[in-house]
Amino acid sequence: MPNGPRPTDVVSQIPATVPFVAPETIERQMGQTFELRLGANESLFGPSPRAIEAMAAASARGHFYGDPEALELRGAIAAREGCAIENVLLASGIDELLMLFARVYVAPGEPVATTYGSYPTFEYAITSVGGRLVHVPYRNHSVDLEALAAVPARLVYLANPDNPSSTWKSRADVAAFIRALPEDRLLLWDEAYSNFAPELEAFDGSLPNVVRLRTFSKAHGMAGIRIGYALAHPDLLTPLNKVRMHFGVSNVAQAGALASYLDVETVSRVVRETEVARDWLVGVMAEAGVMCLASRTNFLCVDLGSREAAESLLLSLRERRVFIRKPGLPPLDRFVRVSVGSREVMERFWELGCGLF
Amino acid sequence: MPNGPRPTDVVSQIPATVPFVAPETIERQMGQTFELRLGANESLFGPSPRAIEAMAAASARGHFYGDPEALELRGAIAAREGCAIENVLLASGIDELLMLFARVYVAPGEPVATTYGSYPTFEYAITSVGGRLVHVPYRNHSVDLEALAAVPARLVYLANPDNPSSTWKSRADVAAFIRALPEDRLLLWDEAYSNFAPELEAFDGSLPNVVRLRTFSKAHGMAGIRIGYALAHPDLLTPLNKVRMHFGVSNVAQAGALASYLDVETVSRVVRETEVARDWLVGVMAEAGVMCLASRTNFLCVDLGSREAAESLLLSLRERRVFIRKPGLPPLDRFVRVSVGSREVMERFWELGCGLF
Repeated sequence: MPNGPRPTDVVSQIPATVPFVAPETIERQMGQTFELRLGANESLFGPSPRAIEAMAAASARGHFYGDPEALELRGAIAAREGCAIENVLLASGIDELLMLFARVYVAPGEPVATTYGSYPTFEYAITSVGGRLVHVPYRNHSVDLEALAAVPARLVYLANPDNPSSTWKSRADVAAFIRALPEDRLLLWDEAYSNFAPELEAFDGSLPNVVRLRTFSKAHGMAGIRIGYALAHPDLLTPLNKVRMHFGVSNVAQAGALASYLDVETVSRVVRETEVARDWLVGVMAEAGVMCLASRTNFLCVDLGSREAAESLLLSLRERRVFIRKPGLPPLDRFVRVSVGSREVMERFWELGCGLF
Repeated sequence: MPNGPRPTDVVSQIPATVPFVAPETIERQMGQTFELRLGANESLFGPSPRAIEAMAAASARGHFYGDPEALELRGAIAAREGCAIENVLLASGIDELLMLFARVYVAPGEPVATTYGSYPTFEYAITSVGGRLVHVPYRNHSVDLEALAAVPARLVYLANPDNPSSTWKSRADVAAFIRALPEDRLLLWDEAYSNFAPELEAFDGSLPNVVRLRTFSKAHGMAGIRIGYALAHPDLLTPLNKVRMHFGVSNVAQAGALASYLDVETVSRVVRETEVARDWLVGVMAEAGVMCLASRTNFLCVDLGSREAAESLLLSLRERRVFIRKPGLPPLDRFVRVSVGSREVMERFWELGCGLF
C-alpha cells in the first residue's frame, strides 16, 4: 500500500520487536503443550479461592461497565496503606501503568534512565512514545543506584526487587537513592515482586516525585486478569486521568482483586510456600554445583556459566515440555530465569531437568 | 509541587474532562442505587450463559497470562468473516482500539475529522495524542458523509450505526463515502452497534484504508469484561503491535468472547428482543406525543423539544432511580438517550417515567 495511511514518525522509527514470546506461541511452533510453565513468573498457586468465587460472580454481571473510579478497591488499598483514595490509581496491570506514565511524562527525544537488561516492557513503553533510553549497567548483577541517580533524565525506572536478576536493594539504600534524585525527576518504582519481600515495602504518599507500582499478577496469582495500581502523590496521578481509559479495568478484575487483597492468609501462604520451594531448589542446585543469584522474588536466576550454555539449557528444557525464559543481555545472559511454585512443582522441575544442569 | 515532574506539553494542554460520569459515581452522590441502568447502552440481557460459564472457568486459570496472539478467538472471527487471522487485532474494547489508532496514526497538530457531537471517547483519544479535531455537523440528526469525506484529515471517524443519534447510513451510502476518501486517509469505522443492524455489516479485507471496529460490549453483553477487535488490512494493523500491550487482553475476556461469539442463538435472541422492546417503546411514546429518532441500535434518542426539558427529564428520572444519559451538544442536546432492554424492562421504564414526558 504505497499510498495508504502512514504511522507517525515516532512509531515508524520503532523496530518491530516483541518484549516476550508467549508460551502458547512456542507450543504452537513445537506442536505440543508445556507440562510446566516456569517462564513468566506466573504464580503456580492459582488465584485465591475467594477471588475465583468473586470473579465467577462478576462474570455474570459482565454486561455492566466496571466502576471507572474503582472506589471499593481503591478504598481498601488506601485503608491498608494509610493514605487517601487519591493516592491510588488503578489500571489493567503494571504494563499499562508504565505506558500511561510514559505517555504523560515523556516527550519524544527526552532521556529516560533504566538498568541495562532490566524489565523490557518498561523500555517498550518508553520507546513507544519516542523517549530516549539511557542505560546504566548492572553492578554485581544488581541495580547500580548511585549511577542511576546520576543520569540526567526526565524519568527513572527502578524495579525492586529487580526482574530478571531477582536481586534487591535495602530500604535504606533506596531511601538514599530517592534523596539523591532531583525533585523534577520522576521515579517509577516497580514493586511487582514486593509481596515476596514485604520488608522493602513502605508507602510515603508525600514524596513529590516517586510512584510505586504494584500488581495482582504475581503473589496474588492473577496475571491473566490484568489489574495493578500506582501509589503516589495525587499531583503525579491526576494527569493520567487525561489519557487513561476510564472504563478500562474490567469488573471481573476489580472484584477479583478486592477479594484477593482482603484474603491476606492466601497471599501469606503463597509467599511462605514460595520461599520454602525456592530454598529447596537453591539447595539441590548448590549440591549439584549450580549457583543462583540470591532472590527475594518468586523466581531464580540460575548461572549456566555462558550464554551458549544458558540458551542450550532453555531449548533442552523445552523438549522436555518445560517453559522457562532467559535474560537476553549481558551480564545476565549467561543465566536462565526459573519461576518458583510449590515445592512439589519444583521437585518435578528438577526431575525433568535432570542431567541438563 | 512547583518543582515536581511535569507532564508533556501535549498532556498539559488537555482540559481535565471525563467523557462519561459513571452511574456508580452518581449513586454515591445521591446516596441511593439505580433501579434501572439505561444510560450506557449496556445490554440488559446479560452475557451469554455459555460466556458466563467460560469466564468462570477462565477465572480459575487467572494466574496464567492470556495468549497475546489470542489465536483461538481471532481464528473464530477470521473463519466467520472469511478473512485471514492477520486481518483481526484484539484489544480490551473499542475504546482501547481508538486510543491505539490515535497513537499510531496521529501526530500532534494533525487534523482528524469527526461528526460534532458523536462518540466523545473518540475525541478523547485524539486529544490525548495532541491531534486537532475538525468537526462536521450532523445533517438531519444523521452523519453528513459528503461533508466528512471532504475534510482534509489524517484520519476520519464514522460510527455506523451512530452513537448517540441512533441513526445510520445504508451500505450503499457508506460504500460511496469510502470510494470518495483519498487513499491516504484512514477511516475508523466504529461498528459497536452493528449487531443490531446486521445488514450494514460486511468486511472487505482488501480495502487499504478502512478499519472496522467491533465490540463484545453491546449485543454480547460484556461491557465490563473489556474486549473488542479491529478488522482491517494487515498493513494497517501491524504498526499497532509496536505500541499495544501484548498481554493486555485478559484470559477471562478471551474465553468469554469466544464462547459468546460461537453462541449465535443468544445474540440473535438479544437482537430480536431488543427490536421488539424498541418498537413497543416507540409506539407508546408516539401515542403520548413523544418522538424518537429512528434507531438501528439498542437505544433510543428521545426528543424533548429543548435542552432544558431534556436536562430536567434526566434529573427527574434520577430521582425515580432511573439512570439515563443525554447528548451534550447541539443539535442532539434536546434529546435524551435511553438504552433498550427487554420489553419487561422497558415497560417498567415507562411506568417509572410516567408523567415526565
